[in-house]
Amino acid sequence: MKLATLKIGGRDGTLVVVSRDLVTCQAVPAVARTLQQALDDWDALAPRLQAVYDKLNDGSAGKAESFLEMECHSPLPRAYQWADGSAYINHVELVRKARNAEVPASFYTDPLMYQGGGDCFIGPCDPIAVLSEDWGVDLEAEVAVVTGDVPMGIGAEAAARAIRLVMLVNDVSLRNLIPGELAKGFGFYQSKPASAFSPVAVTPDELGAAWKDSKLHLPLLVTINDEAFGKPNAGEDMTFSFAQLIAHAARTRELGAGSIIGSGTVSNKQGNLHGSSIANGGVGYCCLAELRMYETIEHGAPRTPFLRFGDSVRIEMLDAQGASIFGAIDHEVAHYHGRKA
Amino acid sequence: MKLATLKIGGRDGTLVVVSRDLVTCQAVPAVARTLQQALDDWDALAPRLQAVYDKLNDGSAGKAESFLEMECHSPLPRAYQWADGSAYINHVELVRKARNAEVPASFYTDPLMYQGGGDCFIGPCDPIAVLSEDWGVDLEAEVAVVTGDVPMGIGAEAAARAIRLVMLVNDVSLRNLIPGELAKGFGFYQSKPASAFSPVAVTPDELGAAWKDSKLHLPLLVTINDEAFGKPNAGEDMTFSFAQLIAHAARTRELGAGSIIGSGTVSNKQGNLHGSSIANGGVGYCCLAELRMYETIEHGAPRTPFLRFGDSVRIEMLDAQGASIFGAIDHEVAHYHGRKA
Repeated sequence: MKLATLKIGGRDGTLVVVSRDLVTCQAVPAVARTLQQALDDWDALAPRLQAVYDKLNDGSAGKAESFLEMECHSPLPRAYQWADGSAYINHVELVRKARNAEVPASFYTDPLMYQGGGDCFIGPCDPIAVLSEDWGVDLEAEVAVVTGDVPMGIGAEAAARAIRLVMLVNDVSLRNLIPGELAKGFGFYQSKPASAFSPVAVTPDELGAAWKDSKLHLPLLVTINDEAFGKPNAGEDMTFSFAQLIAHAARTRELGAGSIIGSGTVSNKQGNLHGSSIANGGVGYCCLAELRMYETIEHGAPRTPFLRFGDSVRIEMLDAQGASIFGAIDHEVAHYHGRKA
Repeated sequence: MKLATLKIGGRDGTLVVVSRDLVTCQAVPAVARTLQQALDDWDALAPRLQAVYDKLNDGSAGKAESFLEMECHSPLPRAYQWADGSAYINHVELVRKARNAEVPASFYTDPLMYQGGGDCFIGPCDPIAVLSEDWGVDLEAEVAVVTGDVPMGIGAEAAARAIRLVMLVNDVSLRNLIPGELAKGFGFYQSKPASAFSPVAVTPDELGAAWKDSKLHLPLLVTINDEAFGKPNAGEDMTFSFAQLIAHAARTRELGAGSIIGSGTVSNKQGNLHGSSIANGGVGYCCLAELRMYETIEHGAPRTPFLRFGDSVRIEMLDAQGASIFGAIDHEVAHYHGRKA
């Protein structure tokens, strides 16, 4: 089934069930007013949401309305946990290659994961608001899952069954703040501002054969300023599955229902190239940093700038029939002008 | 005013207003069912909570019940943002001194802060549940504030006015997991499991003269296994005030209402000693790591072990008259035996 959150209705918005074709939706106040409420009591409520979904799809829903991605917030407008892995080691290999460093062997068995902030996500069509272009604004196109309650110490096999929903992410990164921040030793904070998620979150069964071994085996489509920038397959070169990432996250703590676990920037190796651009016949990139590292390796310095005010980013995934699964993250970099009321 | 959250009532518990003497409390469902709800609409609701508080204190409240700390969850049982500073640079100086390293000059102007997980806090009297003593379980006794909505780029002066509530924290740390995790470069994750907060959160006005320049000028009392372990003054040697910490946190992002910002382990310099134990006439420590570093400096190796199963930790703060302000975090290390229903 497919779920989304309309902005209307306060900070947590209004949960709607969305038809498979993303054309209609229906609020379900009698079941759950918000997605977090649905996740908090998933086993009891999911069948009731599924019943609405079935009616939306066969056209028999009584209260169907038009679904407009523009009216959506991120499926969880705010979340109690947002932890982002770095499961595509090619991304790390490329970073290291650009500075002639080796990837530690442990990186292939012990996932990298950082704790993100969940209090103020960006809506999928809302601007990436920053105070300065000098921060080095970059996208990171990723896949993420939303979990149910997860006990501490869970194994990967059980963790796979805790995946409730799948969605896309733009894990906005401020590249020019990263080196100084990581040098302090406490990880990312200012360099990882608010993330945006796709308008629609879907249950894994909705993905059919594309969901296998807790990985999503479809190209992730990224355009920058309406030009194709990336289309790597999210199921390829993913060193750690979502089940493994959840098990990593839960090693020393429980995860509460509604925890979001991200994949890290999707990145395909393409043989020994560590990536190549779409123009050169490759699958391109999911962040500017990789292209810039590639340019550094080839030319000694990056050539492509980071995002500027007015630059647009679109992140989407299509099913085998070419239909959008999650709707699109589609937004521009803009100057921050204060808090919206 | 003083607020707490009883465990009864679901994942977010039940908001109660607590009398100044922590003897009585009253649920306020007509105002807000949960603390997050109160914070989401603070300007409108705080005066109504204050009215209940005034009645509780003068004995005229109609529905007052006995207040029992044992029945409390952390004031926010889960939070959308928990970011912990490291404002007492003495703690960092001691870490460095133990390994003969210098503290970078920037550490005195640019706060250290890590992003914590907020989905599953520990209740103030609930066990610190871990799967293994070998993780090196340590306390970190701290002060924390809860913010209202904070715009990106806020200055410290305005940030001071965004502080809604003050409370105590045990930022449980798994010391033996820290070196390996920090070596990976992404900061803490597994080494910083769930934190616990004091039963009661209070508005800054409640602290009177002890709340000055966005610092809390009172001793933080720590006992381990019923023995006095620390009593440093949280207002001393705090290099960055809470206002500065909030400004740091909001440099590149908004903070949503209910964001928790921690002080880091409270730590007093005591001249050039970088700390000394209560038995030696000092103010002691707020974490075992500092004592162990001190032992390393003096004896070449630490002598005090980390917490073991059954060890208890109590963290409290008394006002000038000796009355508990926040109630006590009072709990034991226990073996994790699965998720509570």
